[in-house]
Amino acid sequence: MEDIKLYVTKHKERFISELIELLKIPSVSADTAFSQDVLDTADAVKTSLEHAGCDFVEICDTAGYPIVYGEKIIDPKLPTVLVYGHYDVQPADPLELWTSPPFEPVIKKTDIHPEGAIFARGSCDDKGQMYMHVKAFEYMIQSNTLPCNVKFMIEGEEEVGSVNLKTFVENNNEKLKNDVILISDTGMISNQQPSITTGLRGLSYVEVEVTGPNRDLHSGLYGGAVANPINVLSKMIASLHDENNHITIPGFYDKVEELSLEERAEMAKAPFSLDNYKKALDLNDVYGEKGYVTNERNSIRPTLDVNGIWGGYTGEGAKTVIASKAFAKISMRLVPNQDWEEITALFTKHFLNIAPAGVTVKVTPHHGGQGYVTPIDSIGYKAANKAYTETFGVPAIPVRSGGSIPIVALFEKELKSKTILMGFGLDSDAIHSPNEHFGIFNFLKGIETIPLFYKYFVELSK
Amino acid sequence: MEDIKLYVTKHKERFISELIELLKIPSVSADTAFSQDVLDTADAVKTSLEHAGCDFVEICDTAGYPIVYGEKIIDPKLPTVLVYGHYDVQPADPLELWTSPPFEPVIKKTDIHPEGAIFARGSCDDKGQMYMHVKAFEYMIQSNTLPCNVKFMIEGEEEVGSVNLKTFVENNNEKLKNDVILISDTGMISNQQPSITTGLRGLSYVEVEVTGPNRDLHSGLYGGAVANPINVLSKMIASLHDENNHITIPGFYDKVEELSLEERAEMAKAPFSLDNYKKALDLNDVYGEKGYVTNERNSIRPTLDVNGIWGGYTGEGAKTVIASKAFAKISMRLVPNQDWEEITALFTKHFLNIAPAGVTVKVTPHHGGQGYVTPIDSIGYKAANKAYTETFGVPAIPVRSGGSIPIVALFEKELKSKTILMGFGLDSDAIHSPNEHFGIFNFLKGIETIPLFYKYFVELSK
Repeated sequence: MEDIKLYVTKHKERFISELIELLKIPSVSADTAFSQDVLDTADAVKTSLEHAGCDFVEICDTAGYPIVYGEKIIDPKLPTVLVYGHYDVQPADPLELWTSPPFEPVIKKTDIHPEGAIFARGSCDDKGQMYMHVKAFEYMIQSNTLPCNVKFMIEGEEEVGSVNLKTFVENNNEKLKNDVILISDTGMISNQQPSITTGLRGLSYVEVEVTGPNRDLHSGLYGGAVANPINVLSKMIASLHDENNHITIPGFYDKVEELSLEERAEMAKAPFSLDNYKKALDLNDVYGEKGYVTNERNSIRPTLDVNGIWGGYTGEGAKTVIASKAFAKISMRLVPNQDWEEITALFTKHFLNIAPAGVTVKVTPHHGGQGYVTPIDSIGYKAANKAYTETFGVPAIPVRSGGSIPIVALFEKELKSKTILMGFGLDSDAIHSPNEHFGIFNFLKGIETIPLFYKYFVELSK
Repeated sequence: MEDIKLYVTKHKERFISELIELLKIPSVSADTAFSQDVLDTADAVKTSLEHAGCDFVEICDTAGYPIVYGEKIIDPKLPTVLVYGHYDVQPADPLELWTSPPFEPVIKKTDIHPEGAIFARGSCDDKGQMYMHVKAFEYMIQSNTLPCNVKFMIEGEEEVGSVNLKTFVENNNEKLKNDVILISDTGMISNQQPSITTGLRGLSYVEVEVTGPNRDLHSGLYGGAVANPINVLSKMIASLHDENNHITIPGFYDKVEELSLEERAEMAKAPFSLDNYKKALDLNDVYGEKGYVTNERNSIRPTLDVNGIWGGYTGEGAKTVIASKAFAKISMRLVPNQDWEEITALFTKHFLNIAPAGVTVKVTPHHGGQGYVTPIDSIGYKAANKAYTETFGVPAIPVRSGGSIPIVALFEKELKSKTILMGFGLDSDAIHSPNEHFGIFNFLKGIETIPLFYKYFVELSK
């Protein structure tokens, strides 16, 4: 399939500038200040699908941000690939840590990306990876090599838990009918070693509020005599892990799937350097659950992390105050078989239980999703592996990711089809962080690899 | 001394409107955004002292905000009273909890203040109480009843630890020479029961910073594999108290003065209703060090409170991030004999010691001050008590306050004179909180009582 290489070489400047335009729109779904930008991005995605060659594209309203649906049905008897992606992005703060503005994309060379990388919020997660599919589709249309039907479902609420996607999928079973779901919203080991994500962690995200006195108090007059909500919240958070960093919520581990030593040995084969890992993060040491190594802690084990905490005086200088309230955002990454709603309930019950007298505690679930494991003997996995092998020259390695794409489990339940996670990003691309970027190499390699997936998926489906 | 009552009645409207003008200037010393306002307030204080009748007033520059000095020397052979106060105020946030803007003073009636109270940041702490002295002085000048020399030292950095006052006092021993120091920056039990603060707690205020990875990380890809600075900070803060709410810093209690059962029994005589205390704060229970009651916990016992904490994503919605850094502002209230610099060193050493591998910790001392106890058999105390007894009809009760006025210990050391804390505020005045206010009754009663202190102090000094 030499033509795709030529096509990419011929059009890459245009591909990049089109993506850059998309990245300029600050589609931050978590912050209502950007709501118009999120809607504008949906329009831009619709237009790009029309130009790429969809017969039919529509913006489907939901209770939240719309879902962009597009399709090209060439023959109902042929297989159908459903491409999922999202056009919303994470908040960009802390802004001061960006070396260039998050929504003013620039191309810079890095050690890992000698050909340059596009620096912008969403460049990798997920606008850049989503757009690879649009351009790969454009190629197949232009070269008349599209071997099957395609459907696109690009949503705008992935970064806030895909809260309205479930209803949409439930109500559109027929429209979304497919033989395989293809998603590029994950990473690979390196630009020399592709990998396919076969496992994802589930997620339960909650916000907690601890209230003490009905107003802020002078810490001199009241200090030591009333429960300080910040001290209490700290104590409650601290108690959620024991001295071995096991999570102390009763029942939390009950359904956790324990991997066999063989499986763990298999995992350990993936190339990994703890020294480089620590060096990349300027850490003097790693930290985590006793009895597991780093690559297990962030993939096959459930975790609990505070994502944000605030309370009291956080301004310049000193204020001797006891705050009336303290807050924290807490997320738990879950492994297959842990049900996120059950875990959310267990957390809530436990957190209310451990509140001392003198404070009142409120727990507000934000969102969540189930974990997922995909079998490596499926047609989809084999097709993806053949595609990677052809463009990278080496077969892909199956890996468990610590990330969560809650909707993958939803798709399997509602649409009865498997999802293939063909990721082209790198862990070092700093998604969800300042200076997120996506390698030009990765972007173009994705466009080059995706049509091969279609080709082999159809061949193997015969 | 009936004239003072008449004088107050005749001029109270003017006194109140003058104070309101002073309260309109947002002299927040902790926030450089207000630096010009702080300087403007110093000018306003200078003018008020000149109008009240000082022979000499000057604005003394320091490395920080200036100190306003004024004096009226009628006869070097007569005793000299040094009045201390501060013209800076606490930050006003959280602004949304104020029922009227903090720097737009309004008079509102409350259950405790049926004659009305002035609602504004600084109304009680300390502009309102400081201004009572200016108006009492004005009366003594106008009625030609000033019985001794007066010196005023009004600073602008009390709310940020009086960082430059020490040098000023050290360099101006002669200028500040006095026989007694008079301060109104504390409270009394109630408008029916005056009290004199005989003990103050010391203070050590520090800021801590916990750094994990060199950038914010995706909690899915890294969660559970690296130390999360917020979780770690919470664990470190939690460990600073044991299950009995004793502070765990080694050596922290070594120099704490333990009161005898007799002294504690004496303290217990002060009128106090735990039910009303809890009701006023909407608390289902109090909380604190085992083995001590509420009025001991907030006065004779040292404490450790987190005054502010922040880290990670604190905006709207959810962000699955592991923050690179987490911060907290922590203050310790100290009792007599605990040296604040020694305690700060003990805290710093301990906090660095308990940092786990995987994070780096920084401790930055903000400021501090020593505790203080004043003897109730001094001439100053007796004079104050006679003054209160005459204007309130009942003698004052000596009480230990949990608050800190670090400079009181400094004055005794440098100026070799005792400080009398004649407070006219109430605990319910919400100093350092939203809706700070100061009763009209208290303001005028202070102006009425202060000249009597001068009278009796000079008589008893003969």
